[in-house]
Amino acid sequence: MFRNQYDTDCITWSPAGRIHQIEYAMEVVKQGSAAIGLRSDKYALVATLRRSPSELSSYQKKIFEIDEHIGIATSGLVADARVLAKYMRNECINHRYVYDGPMQVGRLVLQVADKSQLGTQRIGSRPYGVGLLVVGNDQTGPHLYETQPSGQYFEFTAMAIGARSQAGRTYLEKHFKRFAELPLDELITHALLALRETLGSGTELSSTNVAVGYVGGEHPFTLLEDETIQPYIDAVKKPDEAAPAAAPAAAEGDAAMDTGS
Amino acid sequence: MFRNQYDTDCITWSPAGRIHQIEYAMEVVKQGSAAIGLRSDKYALVATLRRSPSELSSYQKKIFEIDEHIGIATSGLVADARVLAKYMRNECINHRYVYDGPMQVGRLVLQVADKSQLGTQRIGSRPYGVGLLVVGNDQTGPHLYETQPSGQYFEFTAMAIGARSQAGRTYLEKHFKRFAELPLDELITHALLALRETLGSGTELSSTNVAVGYVGGEHPFTLLEDETIQPYIDAVKKPDEAAPAAAPAAAEGDAAMDTGS
Amino acid sequence: MFRNQYDTDCITWSPAGRIHQIEYAMEVVKQGSAAIGLRSDKYALVATLRRSPSELSSYQKKIFEIDEHIGIATSGLVADARVLAKYMRNECINHRYVYDGPMQVGRLVLQVADKSQLGTQRIGSRPYGVGLLVVGNDQTGPHLYETQPSGQYFEFTAMAIGARSQAGRTYLEKHFKRFAELPLDELITHALLALRETLGSGTELSSTNVAVGYVGGEHPFTLLEDETIQPYIDAVKKPDEAAPAAAPAAAEGDAAMDTGS
Amino acid sequence: MFRNQYDTDCITWSPAGRIHQIEYAMEVVKQGSAAIGLRSDKYALVATLRRSPSELSSYQKKIFEIDEHIGIATSGLVADARVLAKYMRNECINHRYVYDGPMQVGRLVLQVADKSQLGTQRIGSRPYGVGLLVVGNDQTGPHLYETQPSGQYFEFTAMAIGARSQAGRTYLEKHFKRFAELPLDELITHALLALRETLGSGTELSSTNVAVGYVGGEHPFTLLEDETIQPYIDAVKKPDEAAPAAAPAAAEGDAAMDTGS
Amino acid sequence: MFRNQYDTDCITWSPAGRIHQIEYAMEVVKQGSAAIGLRSDKYALVATLRRSPSELSSYQKKIFEIDEHIGIATSGLVADARVLAKYMRNECINHRYVYDGPMQVGRLVLQVADKSQLGTQRIGSRPYGVGLLVVGNDQTGPHLYETQPSGQYFEFTAMAIGARSQAGRTYLEKHFKRFAELPLDELITHALLALRETLGSGTELSSTNVAVGYVGGEHPFTLLEDETIQPYIDAVKKPDEAAPAAAPAAAEGDAAMDTGS
Amino acid sequence: MFRNQYDTDCITWSPAGRIHQIEYAMEVVKQGSAAIGLRSDKYALVATLRRSPSELSSYQKKIFEIDEHIGIATSGLVADARVLAKYMRNECINHRYVYDGPMQVGRLVLQVADKSQLGTQRIGSRPYGVGLLVVGNDQTGPHLYETQPSGQYFEFTAMAIGARSQAGRTYLEKHFKRFAELPLDELITHALLALRETLGSGTELSSTNVAVGYVGGEHPFTLLEDETIQPYIDAVKKPDEAAPAAAPAAAEGDAAMDTGS
Amino acid sequence: MFRNQYDTDCITWSPAGRIHQIEYAMEVVKQGSAAIGLRSDKYALVATLRRSPSELSSYQKKIFEIDEHIGIATSGLVADARVLAKYMRNECINHRYVYDGPMQVGRLVLQVADKSQLGTQRIGSRPYGVGLLVVGNDQTGPHLYETQPSGQYFEFTAMAIGARSQAGRTYLEKHFKRFAELPLDELITHALLALRETLGSGTELSSTNVAVGYVGGEHPFTLLEDETIQPYIDAVKKPDEAAPAAAPAAAEGDAAMDTGS
Repeated sequence: MFRNQYDTDCITWSPAGRIHQIEYAMEVVKQGSAAIGLRSDKYALVATLRRSPSELSSYQKKIFEIDEHIGIATSGLVADARVLAKYMRNECINHRYVYDGPMQVGRLVLQVADKSQLGTQRIGSRPYGVGLLVVGNDQTGPHLYETQPSGQYFEFTAMAIGARSQAGRTYLEKHFKRFAELPLDELITHALLALRETLGSGTELSSTNVAVGYVGGEHPFTLLEDETIQPYIDAVKKPDEAAPAAAPAAAEGDAAMDTGS
Repeated sequence: MFRNQYDTDCITWSPAGRIHQIEYAMEVVKQGSAAIGLRSDKYALVATLRRSPSELSSYQKKIFEIDEHIGIATSGLVADARVLAKYMRNECINHRYVYDGPMQVGRLVLQVADKSQLGTQRIGSRPYGVGLLVVGNDQTGPHLYETQPSGQYFEFTAMAIGARSQAGRTYLEKHFKRFAELPLDELITHALLALRETLGSGTELSSTNVAVGYVGGEHPFTLLEDETIQPYIDAVKKPDEAAPAAAPAAAEGDAAMDTGS
Repeated sequence: MFRNQYDTDCITWSPAGRIHQIEYAMEVVKQGSAAIGLRSDKYALVATLRRSPSELSSYQKKIFEIDEHIGIATSGLVADARVLAKYMRNECINHRYVYDGPMQVGRLVLQVADKSQLGTQRIGSRPYGVGLLVVGNDQTGPHLYETQPSGQYFEFTAMAIGARSQAGRTYLEKHFKRFAELPLDELITHALLALRETLGSGTELSSTNVAVGYVGGEHPFTLLEDETIQPYIDAVKKPDEAAPAAAPAAAEGDAAMDTGS
Repeated sequence: MFRNQYDTDCITWSPAGRIHQIEYAMEVVKQGSAAIGLRSDKYALVATLRRSPSELSSYQKKIFEIDEHIGIATSGLVADARVLAKYMRNECINHRYVYDGPMQVGRLVLQVADKSQLGTQRIGSRPYGVGLLVVGNDQTGPHLYETQPSGQYFEFTAMAIGARSQAGRTYLEKHFKRFAELPLDELITHALLALRETLGSGTELSSTNVAVGYVGGEHPFTLLEDETIQPYIDAVKKPDEAAPAAAPAAAEGDAAMDTGS
Repeated sequence: MFRNQYDTDCITWSPAGRIHQIEYAMEVVKQGSAAIGLRSDKYALVATLRRSPSELSSYQKKIFEIDEHIGIATSGLVADARVLAKYMRNECINHRYVYDGPMQVGRLVLQVADKSQLGTQRIGSRPYGVGLLVVGNDQTGPHLYETQPSGQYFEFTAMAIGARSQAGRTYLEKHFKRFAELPLDELITHALLALRETLGSGTELSSTNVAVGYVGGEHPFTLLEDETIQPYIDAVKKPDEAAPAAAPAAAEGDAAMDTGS
Repeated sequence: MFRNQYDTDCITWSPAGRIHQIEYAMEVVKQGSAAIGLRSDKYALVATLRRSPSELSSYQKKIFEIDEHIGIATSGLVADARVLAKYMRNECINHRYVYDGPMQVGRLVLQVADKSQLGTQRIGSRPYGVGLLVVGNDQTGPHLYETQPSGQYFEFTAMAIGARSQAGRTYLEKHFKRFAELPLDELITHALLALRETLGSGTELSSTNVAVGYVGGEHPFTLLEDETIQPYIDAVKKPDEAAPAAAPAAAEGDAAMDTGS
Repeated sequence: MFRNQYDTDCITWSPAGRIHQIEYAMEVVKQGSAAIGLRSDKYALVATLRRSPSELSSYQKKIFEIDEHIGIATSGLVADARVLAKYMRNECINHRYVYDGPMQVGRLVLQVADKSQLGTQRIGSRPYGVGLLVVGNDQTGPHLYETQPSGQYFEFTAMAIGARSQAGRTYLEKHFKRFAELPLDELITHALLALRETLGSGTELSSTNVAVGYVGGEHPFTLLEDETIQPYIDAVKKPDEAAPAAAPAAAEGDAAMDTGS
């Protein structure tokens, strides 16, 4: 596990010009349960696998509404995600108060990234342990962004983050060129299919472990969970896979994180 | 006991993207004496094993009233639990003062979780060493939450934390589906039965080492101790187990913690 | 003496979920000279072994009056004890000033415990190295509390802390059930007898090395020392033990602490 | 990877009179994707290779407009670059507000360098991990500067920074003497040809992975991307190289940095 | 010289419940030159061995007047002693200003001890390296106190601190019972005789290396040095010891301390 | 490279009474390119070797005007030199504002030295990595000072600092006795000849790599560069050395420093 | 060079009750060039060896006037000496302003010592690396004090500090008894003779490397240098030693210090 002596804080450069603590923080994003984001010319949406620590519990929220035109899906430390979500909500509220209108998505993402950068250049704190997929709709149309603990962000047509997200990205790369013109329900179907790629063996999509959030057209940010997501789940269910409902993985050791099921 | 070099403070990421100090703090919750929480459609309640450091002492309080509609059961460092209880009381008082009404349970839990998160991202402090089961009743009905040192929280139908709590969870998983419609006294009985599962050999439930707090219906948060809990204890006593009263475990080495008996 | 690498400050959790510095601080209480506390339905009292560093010196004070209805006996670092005593006096004075009446004992103990907790969650300070037996009398009757460096406190019927206090506790456990109805002088006698159990060989109770403080009934907190304690000493003296007066132990190495004689 | 014991913070001198952390920070600039800058008597321009972390994403912005007469190209940590860009924009806005005119390029560069120096002489922060090529046009004509993490800056006729930039510098050294009188389009062609030298095998210039920014003459700072850069790309394309479009390198391990493709 | 890993700062407890830095600071008191304190029912006095670093220098002051009714003798770091003396003088002046009367000796000693305690519970400072013998006379009669770096203090009938002080204490223990009624000059003689016990071989009391301070009866604090102490020196001189005047020890290595001659 | 354990910060003394970090900082001055200073009774001047990191760049400024009567030449970290130059300019401006006249050279040098001393006695910062030759002319005539990272300064008749400066000093020691009466152009010639001594093999003085600044008589501080220095260069050129123009050394590894060519 | 683990900062006591950093700081005083101080009943004077880093430089100032009745000679770090000299001047100015008269010498010395003590009890700073000989004349006559980095000070009749000062002290011890009545010029001669004892072989007193400062009688503090000291130099020159003028030692490695020649 040992690598070298330059990796215990984020204000020390390695001789190779790297800041290992930033890289380590980005590992945690790869370990959260998967989140899928994609957008057409009219809609942007995120889909996530939800986990619950036990059969007795409700499912962990992984999609948050930020403002009526912006929502996020998270992967990584849940408590850190809440801090960023709170910050984003405040920024949107302030923007509405001052300018009497919705905040531009790209501008909000930039501010989150700048806030994240701070944690990478000061002693006494640490980089946030969470990656976000941000979807929003403003006068420039729908957008999908990814933010990282390093303070970097990218705009995407479609993206998957979290555990086993590579399989989801592969799905998306195969299909994203057709997304631009698709209607909302087909986009949701694609998101669920991409999400299914990230499932481990013995797990299945279900109305309880999947949540989808979309925004675009005339719709404010809308969350599909439980009953509202069921029809879409049914639609993507392969005939021979009506088998066991997704058994939520018991949290072990890393309970502070939404581990990929 | 040694694991690696990235585990001495909570602002250092391990190369695998973990913050070990947060995980270590969560260990202490597993070592406090057990606490059980469950709820029906109308009531939410917590039940705890109380300990006393000696025959000469009173029993350690593990259930605290926060407001007349909210109570908590704790597992872990007692002194840390008091800090959080004090914080929660102040928040409820402030809420009543400002809004002239009770605080919503979920909102209070969120604030406790955010406060806990702070301790995981700053140098010079440490994560709180206590887990809480929060029960409350508001206009959305009764609720049961668990909060963790990591700043994470979950809503549960029923939950057990603390030493040997796995046995309690097993009991709850077997029965929780019937809780929704049960009257209060049957819920208490279930809580005591679940609590009994967490007892070590040679220990028995008694009116002195058990406390139950409930809220819901027309009842404000109410604590059952000593005489008031006796009838319920008697009800769950197996005929052949009228044996030795629970011998309180003498505190050894970890006296700062409510060790599981 | 070495245990592990997680024990050099009180904001680092060990992998087993313990904070070793808190536990180490509690060791110092076990090394101070013994203090006995007990209460009846009407009185609460503390008795301590006093030490003097040399024949030339006066005896070290171990019982402090806090307010006219509250007193404490200490075991551990004397200088730390003074800090807490000063804090308690100020709180009582402030309470009298604001509410024009005596502070409730339990409330004061809670504040001391909360103050102690602070020292266990911040870098740059250390846990207090002293344990207190607090006796007081308020509208709810007489009380006996023990506070610990960890920020924990318990209410007791009778308790012994400090060096060789286990022998004192054994005595108390044998007799405490009869304390409730006893008159003051019998309570004092029991305290002295319990204290005698904690003596090492070659030491004897005397009017110089014993102090007793009591409160209750119509009595404000009263300290019995020297001549005033002599009758009680005489009363518990075994006929065949009129031997050498208690030879005060010379302080060696740990002069900052009231070592048990 | 180990060198010596004097390289873990930027306030420690090595016995040889060096501050290794500053040198390490300069390594990161060499690892970003290449950026070319050059100027004639009338124009100054920068050209960069853009990367995208995946086929699904947009390309990472590497050229930023600072004011209408100043622009920068960056190599190194993108998040750090944004911090400096933000600072530069603020300085320009303030200058316009106070003096009602554009800021002199050299003065702005000096301020950036001074700000960078701060990070090399204080504990608790770190040197910025980014190098800038700054182009601007003011009453003294067009300028090209390079700033470094060390707080040093130089004025150049032409310069290449980032991965494999040595090849670009070699090209520039061969041709820079003729730049002074060249028209804008020939300057752009030279920049693209220099940029092509820095490409790894299997990569090719394309309208998506190249961006050019220029300023000078009557032109404010202007960015050529996508369609607007296409004609210039076509012009430098060798007949036999109409082969594969530049495959963007997948980010691996150092995603916080614009790695050279 | 090595003992363990818990002894490098005063906010770390050893597993045995000790704070080694406090104990180490108390070592320095044992290394200063000796100081003797004693009191009768009417007078309190201190006597010290003075040192000079060389024949060329004046003698180091070791007795300081604090107020007209209080004086101190010091053993340990001279510079630290000055800090405490200054503090004590200020407290006395303030007391006189506020209450228009002299400060009680015991109260001043308590404040010095509390100030010393602070240095044992905070990081970033260190315990004072000096022990004081405080003599004073107030409405409760004459007093002699010893304060320690740990923040502890004791009242004494007679006491010796510093190098070879054990021999002085032995003398005092033999004679202190007769001190109560003695006139001032006999007390001084006793102090000198006790001081002589602490001398190393080849050193002798002389009017230059001895100073005595007394207070009591109608006398304000009075310092006897040089000529004024000579008669008392002569009185205690043994007939056969009119030999070499005390050769002051040259300071070696620990010049910051008043080393015992 | 290892020396001992007392050399990692400037607030730790070595057992031999040295502060190694200060000494290390002085090493960097020896590695900058050479600077020569000398003065007559009427003029003071500095001459420096300028470097450029590449053929494409302008030459690094090493002489700065501070006020119209003061200038400096630097050797060491360029960014640190700028910080001191800025400080000196501010002091001169403030002096002119307050006293309506030029600042005395010696006074300014003293302030720079005091500012440098601060960096050697505080944790959290580091000594400046630059040495200055300060020339100025005030009512007391022309002056030449050297300041060092240690906070020390000296007045000189003539001095050389930086790489290979020993050869320059040897030249100056041979000729300085005649400087007092020389006219300005002969002084410049001497400076260039001394500077030539510091050149490595294969390098030659040229109008591009040399700069001279002088002040004195009626002249304000004047900088000779490029064309203005050419005549003096020609004058000192040996007939057989009209060979290759000084090839500027490429910066390698220590680009933050003006390395000696 | 290694001694133990308790010597890296001045707030850590060694088990033997020593603070090694203070002792290390005192080493630097022994390494500065020698300074001699002595006084008669009417005059106090200091004499120092001055050094110059090179033949080209002026001599380093080692005697500073503080006020017209006080002067100091320093040995150790020159930059630290300036800080203390500045402090002393300010104190004298303030005293004159407030009390309209000169400050008493002993009081000023005390303040310097208290300021020095601060550096020995706080983290984040270091003890000053300089020893002072302070001479002054006030209504109590002439005085000579030595202050040390430890915060200690002594009054002397005559004293030598710095390199090879032991030889100077030996001279002084032989003659100091006659100083009281001597006229000024004989005192200066004694000082120079004592100073000559501290010279290494091959060095000789000269008007350039010696400076003398005196105060007393009607004289304000007066500095003898260069021509004014020449007659006294000539007076003490041995007939056979008219040889080489003192060759100033080139500074090597410890240029921050006035090394003993």
